[in-house]
Amino acid sequence: MSASSASESPCRLQVALGSRSYPIHIGPGLLGDPQWLTPHLAGRQVMIVTNETVAPLYLERCRAALSEDLEVRELVLPDGEATKSLEQVSRIWDALLEAGFNRRCTLVALGGGVIGDMVGFAAACYQRGVAFVQVPTTLLAQVDSSVGGKTGVNHPLGKNMIGAFWQPRAVLVDTDTLATLPERELSAGLAEVIKYGLIRDAGFLAWLETAIPSLRALDATSLTQAIERSCAIKADIVAADETEQGVRALLNLGHTFGHAIEAHQGYGAWLHGEAVGAGMAMAAEFSARLGWLSMADVERVREIIAAAGLPLAAPAGMTVDDFLARMRLDKKNVDSRLRLVLLHALGDACIHDDAPPESLAAFLEDYPRQA
Amino acid sequence: MSASSASESPCRLQVALGSRSYPIHIGPGLLGDPQWLTPHLAGRQVMIVTNETVAPLYLERCRAALSEDLEVRELVLPDGEATKSLEQVSRIWDALLEAGFNRRCTLVALGGGVIGDMVGFAAACYQRGVAFVQVPTTLLAQVDSSVGGKTGVNHPLGKNMIGAFWQPRAVLVDTDTLATLPERELSAGLAEVIKYGLIRDAGFLAWLETAIPSLRALDATSLTQAIERSCAIKADIVAADETEQGVRALLNLGHTFGHAIEAHQGYGAWLHGEAVGAGMAMAAEFSARLGWLSMADVERVREIIAAAGLPLAAPAGMTVDDFLARMRLDKKNVDSRLRLVLLHALGDACIHDDAPPESLAAFLEDYPRQA
Repeated sequence: MSASSASESPCRLQVALGSRSYPIHIGPGLLGDPQWLTPHLAGRQVMIVTNETVAPLYLERCRAALSEDLEVRELVLPDGEATKSLEQVSRIWDALLEAGFNRRCTLVALGGGVIGDMVGFAAACYQRGVAFVQVPTTLLAQVDSSVGGKTGVNHPLGKNMIGAFWQPRAVLVDTDTLATLPERELSAGLAEVIKYGLIRDAGFLAWLETAIPSLRALDATSLTQAIERSCAIKADIVAADETEQGVRALLNLGHTFGHAIEAHQGYGAWLHGEAVGAGMAMAAEFSARLGWLSMADVERVREIIAAAGLPLAAPAGMTVDDFLARMRLDKKNVDSRLRLVLLHALGDACIHDDAPPESLAAFLEDYPRQA
Repeated sequence: MSASSASESPCRLQVALGSRSYPIHIGPGLLGDPQWLTPHLAGRQVMIVTNETVAPLYLERCRAALSEDLEVRELVLPDGEATKSLEQVSRIWDALLEAGFNRRCTLVALGGGVIGDMVGFAAACYQRGVAFVQVPTTLLAQVDSSVGGKTGVNHPLGKNMIGAFWQPRAVLVDTDTLATLPERELSAGLAEVIKYGLIRDAGFLAWLETAIPSLRALDATSLTQAIERSCAIKADIVAADETEQGVRALLNLGHTFGHAIEAHQGYGAWLHGEAVGAGMAMAAEFSARLGWLSMADVERVREIIAAAGLPLAAPAGMTVDDFLARMRLDKKNVDSRLRLVLLHALGDACIHDDAPPESLAAFLEDYPRQA
């Protein structure tokens, strides 16, 4: 990582997807400034969708950036992963139809990953597809869910089971919004930041090992650097494989174990990033069992996850069968084979299709549970 | 139209959409023959989705074409346009998840347009997109809804308001299935066949003027010719404009008035094709008011629509405001302007954005209502 500061003027990345390419702007003060949102509106009709937590903090500022001659509506949904449902997305569709919004409307997703995923899915399916802009207000959404076009909702039988690939017109990351983010959610976002280092960039991982404290202290320069590098890695991978036929699956490091934990605990009990934190520790340890990582590597992984304030152990009482039943529903699986993302080395992830079921079961049996 | 018979061996058309291209096979006896369905399966998991009317007629035959070593499930939904809802699509998602189906599964839509639209939408959004094959069993679905990738459901505030563009892997048109189609639904299908002549092919329209009686009598050779020509015109237009940015909107001739009629009467009261029949008669008459069609042209349009067994008059009691309120929600509209598909000449449709609201209102006031 260079030490140059990107926090003074916004930095711009591009997700290269041909006619669906779009920019990511990162920096402070973007939210209230019309120059960032206005160029990405498809027409006069704009609906800002946010949640009850974010609305009092940032809705006014977002709305102020929209010119008076636009037809602007607002919709405030409840907060939390448990609300990421078809029912809430239907509320967005109802509101759009009641407002008489047509195919040239634009949705603005103002909030964390849940809002981004639901608004993106609502945009993907409203009148078979309308424009939307991501304005992520959590670190997790800023470095992960707002970039790449994965949208959708949960189902009682699995996370993100209903959804679409639908790219935003732009992603606007205003780093000022992290000032109001609860510490636990900041940690959850760091899980995905660490993930980018683990799968693709050992240098970034080494930088993070020293930068975690300043990131947790909300140092603006460090945050912008971490977000920029994370988005750049994600944008590269998404550009290479938009619909997850291959390399994009690497972004799921820690997610197969993590999704099983989230689903088993009930969505929202563990934050997504917390489950991914523990899931990455599990993936590292299973990689060591396969002889790919040294125990020193595993220890580095465990230390940075712990330093970020994330759990390492699996939930108390979660059995091997609890894990395997959920993991069998994972979208990465092909026919009935379990597919895992593991680590060949720190900074080098791989997809593994042929873990012997008995060794996976033995590993899950041995892995520590929370007290 | 050439007189060559395509009814003896299946004919094959191709919808040219790059990596999403797919074949349409048309002919008798396709349903029970493994060679047509098998090559289009993405993996071992297959779910046939049909409705209560079609299941007793064709489900067994469809299933018989699938090899014993596949994992085949069946789902039978209720019948009718009124069931084309998010609730029924959710039943498909529930069934897929309960069966543990993954991203490599294939859905088979066995039925009319409602089944095809719902199964296509379910496929578009299950795990962000899985394969599906259209096996249309009504004339309407065979010549229209199964080709082109428009999928979706109705909303109380508008038809097809929630959906996606999602292309099937193949369309299998078994003309034998028309033997069990109620006469009223055959007429409804003919509305779309007539539409292709009106928008694009005056020669086909002239052929239809003599062929309507043999089509209504289920003459196999005439049916195959009519389906083939209809699908060829649709495939051409879809290939030129997959997501309806331009020319594809021409396929909506009669649909703006027709959708307003369907929505006002309550979905299912008028069949879609019946509403399109009256809608095309309205579009022709409004085109004549603009000076584009002669009264003799309008009379030809009215005669062929009536010969097909379709209504010409608008519903009794449907007011100008009833029409305009529904038409304002049409997906073709841009910002607040009404967009209509009209006829410059028979065989030459055009998109019209600037009909003066008062002349449209006067036309709607004057247009005949059913007794």
